[in-house]
Amino acid sequence: MKHNYKVRVYYQDTDAGGIVYHSKYLDFAERARSELLVEMGVSNKKLIEEEGVAFVLSSASIQYKSPAKLDDVIDVETSVKEIKNASMVMEHRFLVDGQLKVVIEIKLAVINPKDLRPVRLKEELKKLFMNYQESQGE
Amino acid sequence: MKHNYKVRVYYQDTDAGGIVYHSKYLDFAERARSELLVEMGVSNKKLIEEEGVAFVLSSASIQYKSPAKLDDVIDVETSVKEIKNASMVMEHRFLVDGQLKVVIEIKLAVINPKDLRPVRLKEELKKLFMNYQESQGE
Amino acid sequence: MKHNYKVRVYYQDTDAGGIVYHSKYLDFAERARSELLVEMGVSNKKLIEEEGVAFVLSSASIQYKSPAKLDDVIDVETSVKEIKNASMVMEHRFLVDGQLKVVIEIKLAVINPKDLRPVRLKEELKKLFMNYQESQGE
Amino acid sequence: MKHNYKVRVYYQDTDAGGIVYHSKYLDFAERARSELLVEMGVSNKKLIEEEGVAFVLSSASIQYKSPAKLDDVIDVETSVKEIKNASMVMEHRFLVDGQLKVVIEIKLAVINPKDLRPVRLKEELKKLFMNYQESQGE
Repeated sequence: MKHNYKVRVYYQDTDAGGIVYHSKYLDFAERARSELLVEMGVSNKKLIEEEGVAFVLSSASIQYKSPAKLDDVIDVETSVKEIKNASMVMEHRFLVDGQLKVVIEIKLAVINPKDLRPVRLKEELKKLFMNYQESQGE
Repeated sequence: MKHNYKVRVYYQDTDAGGIVYHSKYLDFAERARSELLVEMGVSNKKLIEEEGVAFVLSSASIQYKSPAKLDDVIDVETSVKEIKNASMVMEHRFLVDGQLKVVIEIKLAVINPKDLRPVRLKEELKKLFMNYQESQGE
Repeated sequence: MKHNYKVRVYYQDTDAGGIVYHSKYLDFAERARSELLVEMGVSNKKLIEEEGVAFVLSSASIQYKSPAKLDDVIDVETSVKEIKNASMVMEHRFLVDGQLKVVIEIKLAVINPKDLRPVRLKEELKKLFMNYQESQGE
Repeated sequence: MKHNYKVRVYYQDTDAGGIVYHSKYLDFAERARSELLVEMGVSNKKLIEEEGVAFVLSSASIQYKSPAKLDDVIDVETSVKEIKNASMVMEHRFLVDGQLKVVIEIKLAVINPKDLRPVRLKEELKKLFMNYQESQGE
């Protein structure tokens, strides 16, 4: 029951080597995470305006297994791996026709968007993510 | 009956001014055009591999009326304005909640992707675009 | 005496067609304009913090004459064409080995970065740009 | 004696959070690596056309310590950490005014750009990189 977001590969995503340019997978991952937030009822804008929090990356680890190409439809499977008071670990798996192309694991820090300082995730929000994590099942 | 493609605005599309960065509309436009091609049964890849043609921009004219922002859902309305033997004019209108934000008119040239030289559009392909143009109606 | 800014073409600037992706020229143009501002002593940050103004595009017109490719060194020649109280017209010419590849003419509006509303350019700033424009001379 | 490449932060590199968008550091890193290649006499184009090889990322590990902002000048320090027959490890450190902002370690695979299959680095090229690595000294 992982969150699935589809991305078609356009010219803008490719490079002269004929493959998806490597930094684009981080962009696809952000799109998938944002859609997941929207489905959970807490968009990026709502988080800022109503909760006074934003997420920023504190680290990312990317494994490139095989390149995606023009016109490929990429399934971006997103899962929440760990939820702490002021951070979260998420994994994005990129597949084309069921074949794993790229895996990204990112650590997100919770910050106050005004001063960029770390803050704790409110209990309510934390629960929302924990419920989502549980719903992903085994 | 214009072709409609939806884009949500993510952090990657915005800049420190809090608005969508101006070159991103060209990227959104390419996504919309590519989806239109897919719906017409002639994706970018098929055009190259089966027809031996590709489209490249020969000009673009962009009017920025009002900025889109984080989390906005942009409707990209794409229409074919003119079809010639070796070129085509398309218009993309970007709206948020019915309000016109940006208009792009682009001229596309038909080329041979191997040597980038201009070629004529095959009669069959030309008809496909003309049928699409008609279906847009008044 | 036009302002010259050099850009080397990397993989990130190209697409699967083997050429520089068309929206990248707008990005190169912004880099050139920003460097021009820095040389004039008024960087983007200074404009916001000290003058309370920012520039946003109100229109862009792009002519693609010939594509640039991987490893090309592009000369971006920037000139100020017109200066008004609340807007400015600039031209960017992109050359590789003296051959003209792309021309962009953009119109910039002067805004208050806080509410994105149009404002007038202060007399001092206007003079600075007019002096620059004159220095381009014939 | 690490290779140093300077990047100024423009609007195109930032997001609505007021900081450099996280995937941009991979783009800055590619620019720095490409400039290093040019200085070594083996540009991306030469590698493809004369040596029949290209580099692709097989993994990347990114640590985000502190965000860079509009108008910051980032020093990208690039060093070669390890050279093998068909791969290489490089490190990019991003500093603003001497303060470390981001660290990226990437593993590059050597491939044949025609079929994207792994190939060995020719002895000559390997030596070139080993000499460079030595010149970085302690």
